Amino acid sequence: MTVQYILEIIGTGFFSISGALAATDKSKPDWFGVTFIGFITSIGGGSVRDILLGSYPLGWVRDVNFIYSIITGIVIASLFFKVLIKLRRTFFLFDTLGIAMFTILGTEKALSFNIHPLVAAIMGMFSAVMGGVLRDVLTNEIPVIFKKEVYATACLVGALFYIFLDSVSENRNLNIIISMFLIFIIRIISIKYNLSLPKFRTEDQEEPVNK
Amino acid sequence: MTVQYILEIIGTGFFSISGALAATDKSKPDWFGVTFIGFITSIGGGSVRDILLGSYPLGWVRDVNFIYSIITGIVIASLFFKVLIKLRRTFFLFDTLGIAMFTILGTEKALSFNIHPLVAAIMGMFSAVMGGVLRDVLTNEIPVIFKKEVYATACLVGALFYIFLDSVSENRNLNIIISMFLIFIIRIISIKYNLSLPKFRTEDQEEPVNK
Amino acid sequence: MTVQYILEIIGTGFFSISGALAATDKSKPDWFGVTFIGFITSIGGGSVRDILLGSYPLGWVRDVNFIYSIITGIVIASLFFKVLIKLRRTFFLFDTLGIAMFTILGTEKALSFNIHPLVAAIMGMFSAVMGGVLRDVLTNEIPVIFKKEVYATACLVGALFYIFLDSVSENRNLNIIISMFLIFIIRIISIKYNLSLPKFRTEDQEEPVNK
Repeated sequence: MTVQYILEIIGTGFFSISGALAATDKSKPDWFGVTFIGFITSIGGGSVRDILLGSYPLGWVRDVNFIYSIITGIVIASLFFKVLIKLRRTFFLFDTLGIAMFTILGTEKALSFNIHPLVAAIMGMFSAVMGGVLRDVLTNEIPVIFKKEVYATACLVGALFYIFLDSVSENRNLNIIISMFLIFIIRIISIKYNLSLPKFRTEDQEEPVNK
Repeated sequence: MTVQYILEIIGTGFFSISGALAATDKSKPDWFGVTFIGFITSIGGGSVRDILLGSYPLGWVRDVNFIYSIITGIVIASLFFKVLIKLRRTFFLFDTLGIAMFTILGTEKALSFNIHPLVAAIMGMFSAVMGGVLRDVLTNEIPVIFKKEVYATACLVGALFYIFLDSVSENRNLNIIISMFLIFIIRIISIKYNLSLPKFRTEDQEEPVNK
Repeated sequence: MTVQYILEIIGTGFFSISGALAATDKSKPDWFGVTFIGFITSIGGGSVRDILLGSYPLGWVRDVNFIYSIITGIVIASLFFKVLIKLRRTFFLFDTLGIAMFTILGTEKALSFNIHPLVAAIMGMFSAVMGGVLRDVLTNEIPVIFKKEVYATACLVGALFYIFLDSVSENRNLNIIISMFLIFIIRIISIKYNLSLPKFRTEDQEEPVNK
């Protein structure tokens, strides 16, 4: 059991807490619905990455500890719901750490498939954000990555920075920590100062082409 | 041609009738739209399971009889629409039987990949419900499994029970029939007595964390 | 570098322009959102086809030129937005050509997996329309293929015609061009004369079965 494995299992549990809390945001789902959404949020990103890479077996299919971690997360979300809502600031920090970790570990995994660094960075970003995208699609919401754009852009920037570090330094652990920290900082600063990317077009739009 | 194969082909046709009838519920789609939705409803669950397992080729890609069965289902749905609507009680029983069958056969297939029983049960449940989830996502609805929760929970319970039976008895056919019957009974009773799972939280909710 | 490869790369760029213009139709997304949607629109159809076939590695994962083409498309969409909107008629012709090309090349690829021609035609149609379906699902719209039905039906007819030609003539290039032309003509005529497929049911509908 490596440190990385333990972090992945813990990160999965955090994602399921996050998914469960988000699921209760819009509706009052029952236990099954919350667990299903927590599950998809947790394993969605890594599953999309692995299916796109053709990397089988998927982590949670091979190793039931991911399932246990998700269930534990759901139970914690239920037992400590009020506390977690109050601790949302603290929880947000953990959530951002989780996203940073999933991005960099996903990028590293993609690189091991000998693909172009740009594609690997996209795969890393997908690892972190696609669970949330699937959750939003299932609950009939516009995915948050289209609204809080710095969220996914921070992942992409961090992934590209990791690939750069990886090409100039062999200190893998340090590369991972620095890149994760970059994602963390970009997201925290962008939220603190309410920064966002420029809109694609700012002038009044004419009717675009149909397709 | 085994009995199981024939049941699978017939079950696929039933799912496409069910998908076609559900598709006409919300809008007035044309023939292509209804066929597309019937198709996705029929093959969605098994395809999601096989893609997650990395089990290639997918059933309907390998064997065109699944396509013929789906098209037959769409034609029947069109020709006998009024009758099928009137027979909705009877049709509901067939639909529940189909769901029960897909769950248990999906669980059995997943077990053959030497994965943990809990993961196999999830795969079995996915086989039965993911077609409907994809149908609802495509038609911009909140998936019914989040509303009529006993639907998917019954599949999960039946799948776990099948795995238990499989570990204590070698009579495969009897195990399949008993587990299918359990899913059938749970769903029928839960609808007859309007049973549902407890809500995740019943007290008034405060604003949950954003993610 | 074959002609086919160059056409595929150019077609991918056209799809990303088309996706970017469609993305700005409903909301005012930022650069990340538009790029993400353009990306999914471009690579979605081919990725769905390849994942269903189990054909790895996916084109854009193996070859970064697809990514460059997508990014170029997004930049062009931004720089020449007003012109492109004014040229919508011309652009529509290119878009239809792209759809026709993706359908036939997708069908040909699927045939190389030794699957039934009917399944191969479905795969060809998926290659052309699934990018748009994923785009619509992500932006919380009812997929256009359920509204402008001749769009996907034209692809299916062209794919089946290609398979017929392929079985009677060995002149591959001519077969491709004729089949693409058929898709092109069906779509143009159906839009010019506002043709659509018959509705699945025209009489007043009773309440259909629940599922």
